[in-house]
Amino acid sequence: MDIAMINDQILPVADLPGAYLDRGLYFGDGVYEVVRSYDGRLFALDEHLARFDRSLREIQIAGVDIESVKQKVLSAVDAGGYANAKIYFHITRGSGMRDHLPARDMAPNFLLTVSELHDDPDAKQTGIAVVTHPDWRWKRCDIKSLNLLANVLARIEAQKKGADEAILVGDDGVITEGAMSAFFAIDGKEKTVITRPLGHEILPSITRSMVMQVARNAGLSVVEKALTPTQAAQCDELFIAVTTKDIVPVAEFDGIKIGNGQCGEWTARLMAEFRTLIKKASHS
Amino acid sequence: MDIAMINDQILPVADLPGAYLDRGLYFGDGVYEVVRSYDGRLFALDEHLARFDRSLREIQIAGVDIESVKQKVLSAVDAGGYANAKIYFHITRGSGMRDHLPARDMAPNFLLTVSELHDDPDAKQTGIAVVTHPDWRWKRCDIKSLNLLANVLARIEAQKKGADEAILVGDDGVITEGAMSAFFAIDGKEKTVITRPLGHEILPSITRSMVMQVARNAGLSVVEKALTPTQAAQCDELFIAVTTKDIVPVAEFDGIKIGNGQCGEWTARLMAEFRTLIKKASHS
Repeated sequence: MDIAMINDQILPVADLPGAYLDRGLYFGDGVYEVVRSYDGRLFALDEHLARFDRSLREIQIAGVDIESVKQKVLSAVDAGGYANAKIYFHITRGSGMRDHLPARDMAPNFLLTVSELHDDPDAKQTGIAVVTHPDWRWKRCDIKSLNLLANVLARIEAQKKGADEAILVGDDGVITEGAMSAFFAIDGKEKTVITRPLGHEILPSITRSMVMQVARNAGLSVVEKALTPTQAAQCDELFIAVTTKDIVPVAEFDGIKIGNGQCGEWTARLMAEFRTLIKKASHS
Repeated sequence: MDIAMINDQILPVADLPGAYLDRGLYFGDGVYEVVRSYDGRLFALDEHLARFDRSLREIQIAGVDIESVKQKVLSAVDAGGYANAKIYFHITRGSGMRDHLPARDMAPNFLLTVSELHDDPDAKQTGIAVVTHPDWRWKRCDIKSLNLLANVLARIEAQKKGADEAILVGDDGVITEGAMSAFFAIDGKEKTVITRPLGHEILPSITRSMVMQVARNAGLSVVEKALTPTQAAQCDELFIAVTTKDIVPVAEFDGIKIGNGQCGEWTARLMAEFRTLIKKASHS
């Protein structure tokens, strides 16, 4: 008889709860998104859904109606009732006995959670510490997949060093992005924001595209180029950007104090512009 | 209230079945093994457990007693009652609300399945077709982790092309290994078996080490070097090796017929030697 064992409990495979047959668990065979609301309004939901749709197509999960995903997100957010909510959702290819090759008739699995998002005003004022870590991720980081062990390991190492984020560095010696965020540098003299160009090596971050927009609003030009850690550490200001925290200044990079060792002037202006963008979005 | 949604069903997160909080599902934050039995006896179990222990240590999952894992495998195999069983097991870092950083008190989760293994004598006689695919995997393929989306995608592409296995090729243009197997070439004139040296790019395959042993028994010397697809296609014989199938000849490589287009002479000798090894192991 086909047998399963969960921790110490032996049971027939036929009695295994469905969640234990999810290809997300065996292979990370799925893609995800994280969206947030500000004051009861979802921010950039359509952009996240468009990226989700692309991720699904890139890993060839077919038959998902994005409009129905949108409706699910909206009803779950309503049920949660938080003004500032964090919404995580993923779709996996489906469930079945473990086999690399999926069955033809497999139905995708949807999972979503809503929790309250607490801002961290201290980090926004004093900035965070980041450390570099080798980028061990796969070669299609443009797909927001459930294969995140490299990110987890980098964050664990960063935490051991007292840092809040790991900045990943490829074999070619240049920064790709943060383990959970997009990464930016500011050259005050040149009035530029510098970030890595899109490609298979990084996520097409929604917040990154918002930052590029607010940078232009703030009078900075955007330069898309890759930086080495040494080059980054010499920049006037550094910051990370991610949906759940938007812009967070980097005060320390691999132990080196950046700029004034707190939130830099330009970063503060970008944060103010970002707040304006959020307000505009919530009135549209 | 924290809310979850499974497919169309909204529920409080507090009521979410535990399996949906497994870090294996969100991050692939775990490692696994596949072991088999021949005629009621587990083959190379200790070698697999030693590799499992190493994988756990490499991703810093602590507190797992390998002897207790062994006892679990043995009791589940007993419960299954198959002469030729396939045993899959994994350990994930634990369960909790999704956060890259694990909680300090997290207890690892163990999952195992036992199913019957059916040999495929036809494939062993006629050989299989393989196609090359870019190796998109992460940079620590020596760790047998649950981050297997690149393997899944390569197998799906191979299947579309009518092939049974994808042979992965790195950015440097040389073969790493199969998406589910170790890869070998035979130079009949030089009487050598060629396979890639171990490193972060490939799994330290147990079956690979067994093949190296039986190759020497058969009078072949082992050369550990990387091959380009062109070099591989020019070899006299090719085969893959994996726990669940041991040695399987490759009859076609990217559409090119290999050797006699069936199981080659040397490959047949290695398969015979492998059977001897299995018999010896089952009498030890």
